[in-house]
Amino acid sequence: MDRSPLEKLRLAYEPSLPKILQSRPHFSPGEATSSPQEIKNLFPRTCGRPIMRATAGASRPGHAMRVGVVLSGGQAAGGHNVIAGLLDGLMCLSSESRLLGFLDGPSGIVNNKTKELTPDLVRGYRNLGGFDMIGSGRTKIETDEQLKGALQTAVALKLDAIVVIGGDDSNTNAAILAEYFLANNCKTVVVGVPKTIDGDLKNSYIPASFGFDTACKTYNELIGNIGRDAMSAKKYTHFIKLMGRSASHIALECGLSCHPNMVLIGEEVAHKKMTLAQLTAQVVDVITRRMERGLNYGVILVPEGLIEFIPEVGTLIGELNQHGTPDKISAASKSCFDSLPEEIQKQLLLDRDPHGNVQVSLIETEKLLISAVSRQIKGKFSSQAHFFGYEGRAGFPSNFDAHYCYALGHVASLLCSEGLTGYISCVGNLHLPTPQWTVAGLPITQMMNMEMRKGKSRPVIQKALVDLKGRPFAALEKQRAAWALGSDYRFPGPIQFFGDKELTDATTLTLQLEAGV
Amino acid sequence: MDRSPLEKLRLAYEPSLPKILQSRPHFSPGEATSSPQEIKNLFPRTCGRPIMRATAGASRPGHAMRVGVVLSGGQAAGGHNVIAGLLDGLMCLSSESRLLGFLDGPSGIVNNKTKELTPDLVRGYRNLGGFDMIGSGRTKIETDEQLKGALQTAVALKLDAIVVIGGDDSNTNAAILAEYFLANNCKTVVVGVPKTIDGDLKNSYIPASFGFDTACKTYNELIGNIGRDAMSAKKYTHFIKLMGRSASHIALECGLSCHPNMVLIGEEVAHKKMTLAQLTAQVVDVITRRMERGLNYGVILVPEGLIEFIPEVGTLIGELNQHGTPDKISAASKSCFDSLPEEIQKQLLLDRDPHGNVQVSLIETEKLLISAVSRQIKGKFSSQAHFFGYEGRAGFPSNFDAHYCYALGHVASLLCSEGLTGYISCVGNLHLPTPQWTVAGLPITQMMNMEMRKGKSRPVIQKALVDLKGRPFAALEKQRAAWALGSDYRFPGPIQFFGDKELTDATTLTLQLEAGV
Repeated sequence: MDRSPLEKLRLAYEPSLPKILQSRPHFSPGEATSSPQEIKNLFPRTCGRPIMRATAGASRPGHAMRVGVVLSGGQAAGGHNVIAGLLDGLMCLSSESRLLGFLDGPSGIVNNKTKELTPDLVRGYRNLGGFDMIGSGRTKIETDEQLKGALQTAVALKLDAIVVIGGDDSNTNAAILAEYFLANNCKTVVVGVPKTIDGDLKNSYIPASFGFDTACKTYNELIGNIGRDAMSAKKYTHFIKLMGRSASHIALECGLSCHPNMVLIGEEVAHKKMTLAQLTAQVVDVITRRMERGLNYGVILVPEGLIEFIPEVGTLIGELNQHGTPDKISAASKSCFDSLPEEIQKQLLLDRDPHGNVQVSLIETEKLLISAVSRQIKGKFSSQAHFFGYEGRAGFPSNFDAHYCYALGHVASLLCSEGLTGYISCVGNLHLPTPQWTVAGLPITQMMNMEMRKGKSRPVIQKALVDLKGRPFAALEKQRAAWALGSDYRFPGPIQFFGDKELTDATTLTLQLEAGV
Repeated sequence: MDRSPLEKLRLAYEPSLPKILQSRPHFSPGEATSSPQEIKNLFPRTCGRPIMRATAGASRPGHAMRVGVVLSGGQAAGGHNVIAGLLDGLMCLSSESRLLGFLDGPSGIVNNKTKELTPDLVRGYRNLGGFDMIGSGRTKIETDEQLKGALQTAVALKLDAIVVIGGDDSNTNAAILAEYFLANNCKTVVVGVPKTIDGDLKNSYIPASFGFDTACKTYNELIGNIGRDAMSAKKYTHFIKLMGRSASHIALECGLSCHPNMVLIGEEVAHKKMTLAQLTAQVVDVITRRMERGLNYGVILVPEGLIEFIPEVGTLIGELNQHGTPDKISAASKSCFDSLPEEIQKQLLLDRDPHGNVQVSLIETEKLLISAVSRQIKGKFSSQAHFFGYEGRAGFPSNFDAHYCYALGHVASLLCSEGLTGYISCVGNLHLPTPQWTVAGLPITQMMNMEMRKGKSRPVIQKALVDLKGRPFAALEKQRAAWALGSDYRFPGPIQFFGDKELTDATTLTLQLEAGV
């Protein structure tokens, strides 16, 4: 294997640990939690338990454990460090502990496909990006057959615990598995870890999901470079679509970091019930006013999920999902459909997921906007479209994500050891230096609600959307009029791993603003 | 101005200088140069002069100079450092020296649009990317009127010299201007500096153009991240188009750095006279053999200029440029046109440059390949298309480009001071540590040939294409069979500026291989 110089240095890097994890802490019950009645009915054994908070002090002696770990869903930087932290935590409990990795996502649990994750093997992945140590997958463990398969695997492998590293759906799945195991007298504990670059799995106990920091910083580098190119060439307006399936957290964070001329926020568009025509007019207005000042260039950030937040387009997509073709949809939706460029119409009709639904992530919203805008702009308008997504999911984790993930893995080992099934690993105070981070476990059911999915009421973890009353959005609102008409681009540059800690270890502006820094 | 932490640190960074530039060197004539007769006829005053080599030792005392500098063409990382090096070099000659920046490219010379580049002003751009200090442009100084305008500016501003920072066309322009000034008894010296991310302005005296290093490293980060994502998700074959107008140097360098499954090289396709069908079959073959091994994913690099190197498509584009529409083209070209996907046909017909020519850089070759491949693959084939270009032109220059550009600027100040008009700034031994770099001046005419351009025979600097007998291509050839069927991706990671010099200061593999390292 021909490792790059950076890869070699990152493999040798030792992530710092919160002080409380440097010796084995004690967990004690904190505040009570509560859930809606329907959640209580579905999760009678795991609902209503308290937050568990870690405090320093003598804990019960550790014992050897057999633990399985799975990576679920899309890549997020730091997944390998969660596994490394989990392994090191288990080894602290007893050097007789064993860690098994389920291969290629949750299907590995159902089908009992594993490989042993020895210290030697894990050593080759520390502080590296990607999920390639064991692969990942999007299978959900939902059917009776799948649940039984998982149970059989847990029993066959004599697992004390399974750790599920995933986003909202995967952690919902972890809660279902925890409840199912208890109902079937299976002693295997199920513990979650909050992962998603989208940043939409967060609450007062989980300040951020891992991978968000690295993804935003990777996109920031590129957006900054493009801003510098735009103001040098004075030729193009760049429309940059950013990954982040529903919520606009990534666009907001990148906006705060790079000061582009516009940052479209899906949640704001939905809240203001903006039509596509209104949104287009807003973009045309900014571009036109820039042109009047001689600024024939610009940078506009477009969140991936924007299209669904436009009420008329959201309705159109809903009706297309229901009826399949535009023949049977409402007059309003037909008119919306007809107003779209041919390419987008094709994407709406042809690119369906296995359930026959429109694949929103494939819609080229950035090109839709360019097409709509260019029909209205008077004067010379040249544009470039970009989509940044995959580039930011599997890079080397930033120091923040490397530390955070390593801590999350450690905490998961402790939750397993304490038998706290259905809990998710929480590390708090992330805006402070690593030694001051706090540690807790939160019952996953506490985050759950009932929602309609595919026509059925189901228990889900509600996605945390951008809070239009929150501090990060307020910071954007305060500055965006000035950014629109100027060229105050900011250039964060590539992620740095070595040197000045202000540069290497700082986390996102979103997290700092939310913490009131 | 809200500068990022990295920006502040880069502003404070001091690029290291070659030892020979640490005191003022002496230039003495080296080997003679020769040019074709037609070049001699066109450049009677500037042709046939010797290489000038710098050696340490007492040089003539310096004198105050008035110099103008222009950035010409597309952005390349390090342009600001050339200007910083030029300014510092002029200030070493005399603190009374003055540097003027021509605004927005060569049109600033014709129209006498300048701003003074004081040490205070330049301080705010050191080691930063982009060309925004003075802007850039693509105007060529060709017509009598333009040449007269340039002469008037040189006289009006009492310029001792003009430094042209640009690529092959811009340096051709510098040579024309140098000859024209001499013919018109204008004492203003014209000196060139080799810039282009494409890497196609190089020869035995110019090991690399500046910006190539930073661009390749920026793309390497992204390609590596995508490779890691591909082997984690095991779902997509990623087709990544890379900027680099004609030559495939960037694709080759990124291939050597990231070990993707395929690296298409335009020069090879042309040499082997491959048809689009043969090229498609080659890609289909690799993807199919990967599928047979259970590897339903991959990474394929596609150079921007590839499309023109496919003989039938090159002919088609030539005929379309001549005739405008597909009605009048040859039967062979019509058949080639008809075989292309509708989207590509549209791009060939609609997106014309101001001269009515097809804009090759806008053709989505990566999507053309995906479309052609997906029609032939048997089995499940999912793909993602990417284009990396603008992201890599205006980023923070790598340490290599920061040092190289600073040296190039210094050398330019010396060439100006020595009155070496029509010379281009050369820094050699770039594969060695900075202190050991060598310094020379090369008559631009030495690089020139006559070529047909827009139906006329014109003097041009021939683009250095990928040498199919050179060491970098040989290194690719040696490894690509193994890379095709494995997952030996390499992960260079983001550019690092601080820490281990092996990591921060190394230059491209292309340059190292060419130097025989």
